[in-house]
Amino acid sequence: MSAVRNEIAADGGSSVRIDSYPASEKIYVQGSRPDIRVPMRKITLSDTPAHFGAEENPPLYVYDTSGVYTDPNVAINLHQGLGPVRDQWIAERNDTEELAGPTSKFGRERLEDPDTAHFRFDHIHKPRRAVAGANVSQMHYARKGIITPEMEYIAIRENQNMEEMREHLKGRHPGQAFGASIPDVITPEFVRDEVARGRAIIPANINHPELEPMIIGRNFLVKINGNLGNSAVTSSIEEEVEKMLWGIRWGADTIMDLSTGKNIHETREWILRNSPVPIGTVPIYQALEKVDGKAEELTWEIYRDTLIEQAEQGVDYFTIHAGVRLQHVPLTAKRMTGIVSRGGSIMAKWCLAHHTESFLYTHFEEICEIMKAYDVSFSLGDGLRPGSIYDANDEAQFGELETLGELTKIAWKHDVQTMIEGPGHVPLHMVKINMDKQLEDCHEAPFYTLGPLTTDIAPGYDHITSAIGAANIGWYGCAMLCYVTQKEHLGLPNKQDVREGIVTYKVAAHAADLAKGHPAAQARDNAMSKARFEFRWEDQFNISLDPEKARSFHDETLPKESAKIAHFCSMCGPHFCSMKISQDVRDYAAAKGIDEEQALKQGMDEKSQQFLKEGADIYHKI
Amino acid sequence: MSAVRNEIAADGGSSVRIDSYPASEKIYVQGSRPDIRVPMRKITLSDTPAHFGAEENPPLYVYDTSGVYTDPNVAINLHQGLGPVRDQWIAERNDTEELAGPTSKFGRERLEDPDTAHFRFDHIHKPRRAVAGANVSQMHYARKGIITPEMEYIAIRENQNMEEMREHLKGRHPGQAFGASIPDVITPEFVRDEVARGRAIIPANINHPELEPMIIGRNFLVKINGNLGNSAVTSSIEEEVEKMLWGIRWGADTIMDLSTGKNIHETREWILRNSPVPIGTVPIYQALEKVDGKAEELTWEIYRDTLIEQAEQGVDYFTIHAGVRLQHVPLTAKRMTGIVSRGGSIMAKWCLAHHTESFLYTHFEEICEIMKAYDVSFSLGDGLRPGSIYDANDEAQFGELETLGELTKIAWKHDVQTMIEGPGHVPLHMVKINMDKQLEDCHEAPFYTLGPLTTDIAPGYDHITSAIGAANIGWYGCAMLCYVTQKEHLGLPNKQDVREGIVTYKVAAHAADLAKGHPAAQARDNAMSKARFEFRWEDQFNISLDPEKARSFHDETLPKESAKIAHFCSMCGPHFCSMKISQDVRDYAAAKGIDEEQALKQGMDEKSQQFLKEGADIYHKI
Repeated sequence: MSAVRNEIAADGGSSVRIDSYPASEKIYVQGSRPDIRVPMRKITLSDTPAHFGAEENPPLYVYDTSGVYTDPNVAINLHQGLGPVRDQWIAERNDTEELAGPTSKFGRERLEDPDTAHFRFDHIHKPRRAVAGANVSQMHYARKGIITPEMEYIAIRENQNMEEMREHLKGRHPGQAFGASIPDVITPEFVRDEVARGRAIIPANINHPELEPMIIGRNFLVKINGNLGNSAVTSSIEEEVEKMLWGIRWGADTIMDLSTGKNIHETREWILRNSPVPIGTVPIYQALEKVDGKAEELTWEIYRDTLIEQAEQGVDYFTIHAGVRLQHVPLTAKRMTGIVSRGGSIMAKWCLAHHTESFLYTHFEEICEIMKAYDVSFSLGDGLRPGSIYDANDEAQFGELETLGELTKIAWKHDVQTMIEGPGHVPLHMVKINMDKQLEDCHEAPFYTLGPLTTDIAPGYDHITSAIGAANIGWYGCAMLCYVTQKEHLGLPNKQDVREGIVTYKVAAHAADLAKGHPAAQARDNAMSKARFEFRWEDQFNISLDPEKARSFHDETLPKESAKIAHFCSMCGPHFCSMKISQDVRDYAAAKGIDEEQALKQGMDEKSQQFLKEGADIYHKI
Repeated sequence: MSAVRNEIAADGGSSVRIDSYPASEKIYVQGSRPDIRVPMRKITLSDTPAHFGAEENPPLYVYDTSGVYTDPNVAINLHQGLGPVRDQWIAERNDTEELAGPTSKFGRERLEDPDTAHFRFDHIHKPRRAVAGANVSQMHYARKGIITPEMEYIAIRENQNMEEMREHLKGRHPGQAFGASIPDVITPEFVRDEVARGRAIIPANINHPELEPMIIGRNFLVKINGNLGNSAVTSSIEEEVEKMLWGIRWGADTIMDLSTGKNIHETREWILRNSPVPIGTVPIYQALEKVDGKAEELTWEIYRDTLIEQAEQGVDYFTIHAGVRLQHVPLTAKRMTGIVSRGGSIMAKWCLAHHTESFLYTHFEEICEIMKAYDVSFSLGDGLRPGSIYDANDEAQFGELETLGELTKIAWKHDVQTMIEGPGHVPLHMVKINMDKQLEDCHEAPFYTLGPLTTDIAPGYDHITSAIGAANIGWYGCAMLCYVTQKEHLGLPNKQDVREGIVTYKVAAHAADLAKGHPAAQARDNAMSKARFEFRWEDQFNISLDPEKARSFHDETLPKESAKIAHFCSMCGPHFCSMKISQDVRDYAAAKGIDEEQALKQGMDEKSQQFLKEGADIYHKI
């Protein structure tokens, strides 16, 4: 079942790989310098059978989040971590220094604690930090007009090797982008400009050089996030790392580590050192652990130490609920479901306990100083998101959103990259106002939403209630969709739930990309539909988002190998195959050189009559 | 696993029942006459626990498609069929006659065929037909100003006992209905008017008196259809009947019997005699079987005989692809996926083989004569629907839609009820034009769509790719959604696929109802969210669309009974429970009589300061 293989080698080290998808090959597109090598997945397609016209089908290239785990030429040992993609780029900028060790109190304690030694990651690198006075955020470089290697890498990645698959892109629908402006070709300069304007972020902590750069913004492919994390009933470090690998295998663009249990510092180190995708966290969760779960005992100092601890490990973005202000808390008392965000409720409790404004809000500029010293991006949390249809779009939610807009301006004053988190539970007709208001209040900073769930009544199906909302808000302009599993509201997801959740969100994100008119999106649909029409079953499986499931579903009814080249399928059987009849129509038209346009113009005139007359016998072939 | 129980009784007869949902009871709302008894499902909710305010929660009433199978007071024997709901109503109208036997050639042959005797339904009633010159369609009565018992029944059913659950309806969002006009209370007169105008249909063949009347129209609850049917690898009659029961158990509002294999005449009889929901068919499938699958050998006479055969059995609506005209066929030659509708491809083949216009089109008025003699509704088929994103909204599709609009006018001239079928595969941003064009071209006749699927790339997940499109088009005004299972494009669905597909479509339909602002829709969401906030786990399961799945998912992580009254769940554990903190905020506000409105106006003034000061100690309770 598992596509993630973790094997113990003879020397005691362990090697790991992720099974590649069928007919797929990891390729790298070379940038302007040798160390810009952008990974993609190349899917080889079979030829069109003779009776459908015997043509070659060019390969399809798809976005690849699986890192070198699917590169057979790279050996990976989880105990060593991934090789650095960005070390050289960071070093070249000459604006960071290697520290002697962690500068956070907690980081030092854990490093020196003999009790944690046996599960500590073996090769912790020394953290880097901006030299005094420097700002190492991608936004800072962008605003100075610098195109970083990260930006070039992203431009190549977003283009998806489009030039090599023009044939799959014919008949592209223009899309309706609601004010987004997606260019036909993404240039490095476009990436720079979007980051400079704050319309996109590149989450890429200087202490996470293993990361393969990616971008989150309305004018790029819609991204998805998958969550992992241990909780009270804790899972092991190996399990969490494997969950991360499982997530990127199915297509998660970023992973949030939402752990709240024991040893989350060490777990995070293992995840970061082995993750090719950005890792996000909610630092207040760990801060709360440090005060034994007593929200009122949280202090700015403990929180600040946690930010530095995590920044020096390499976390790429922090969810920070700085928008939950004292004045918003009473607005939630009349709600159906109160405050449903964990971070939001912790801060609400703190505010009430201390009769004072949230320390996240009052210390926001100091937080910015930390963020820019490591290039951690803000994910400004929606602590007051609605937890029910009833509470959607209320004063508490929108009050917080306006505050997040103010904070975005402050973050941008410091050139700190910022995205905004969003709801929650929202009925379909109230989704768009969320997007529109976010764009306006938050000055086009990228939106990153959970769902939204479009109804409350289907626990067990909330990947679907939310995918409906997610596809819509993605279409309207949301940059990243946080997945929801079918266990939402009921329990912790297992591996299959994670897989279902991620693929469901790939569906939502892709539906949004198509609707926005992303230039390369339709290639995969076209390739699939052509394979479908030509009964190339293997290609249909290989092109799909979940080849294993597609194949196993097919094989339930028609398991034989011969059925995979059959010109019909189990749904209709040979008599009823509409595809077959369609091909007869098409063959005839091609053979006779029929020009439909002309026939149309003349309104079913003699030419069409002739087409039909001469066509009489084509059906005797069947 | 099965919730459908078919048991052999001591006398050799078999009894059948469908397991009721937990905490649910079948109730009947009485209409203006004793034989108008409208079924609903009453869900009993538990009281709010003391620390959340100790209040009674009134029962929730939900739409019930399961017929008397969930009524413990009714004994059902599949060999006898259901008791008639509508016999008296039909008889009273005094415009029909009981025939001596089937008037179709095929119907007579099968009845007299000794080889079919052993699997023939035991108690075939004699068919009824309108007396010469009469029109027995609900539209005909409606246009004469007559409110039939069916219309009153439907009005009661659509109101969902709203008066008894006002408490669940507070805070209702107004909705955005795109020109639909849904009244706060559905009256029988409103039903009549909508049917008279052609904006809604009541599929209710006079030969299907077992049917519990329902309505399909934009100003009513969005309905869903589930499909069943044997194909080449045939399933048994029992299996097909059980599939129907399984479908209505999960919430299918109508069932289409798409059988194409052996003995479909007899299978259909069994299904109809035991079905409380309307049954739709595609008569061309059976007609094609009668000519051994050779489309070019189809004739109007064979088709006509099939219509009468099925109308006299009691089929409530016919999919008829009369919009596939000769002139449309060449338009499909340049498509990516040609013609994907089975009916559409059969008719295209016939048109080409005979160099002539479709007999369905040329004989359309004669078809109307048959429809009105039994009150069979048209479901005008979209034989040229797009089978890929590439083909969406093309000339072939829209050309056919315009023809369907012309045919609607002809049907209405005969007072024949008519709905229109729709796509298919359509990217999200091109869905609305489908709805808008259908409303305009087809004069507001109800739209009945398959999906649409918003991407081609996710076989194995097409219930989801299509639910996204379905929720949207339902919101925009589509009256009925034809479900798609996860096996779409891959194989035949099994029972679990059917269940997943139906519940997924219940989600889509409900999301649409909420978005349109249907007056009773939000009651269930509110009841669920209140139960969620108050940790009433049993109620959460019972209110959900799939109580069994919700419970089993919950129990995977926290199986103990005690966990079902716990004030936290496995996702966050006791420390992190945002719901708990929210309740603390709310309790405090209530205890102090805090008026948030006022506090708001004064912008976090002294009153709020006081609230917060006094609240300091509430957190020590935890």
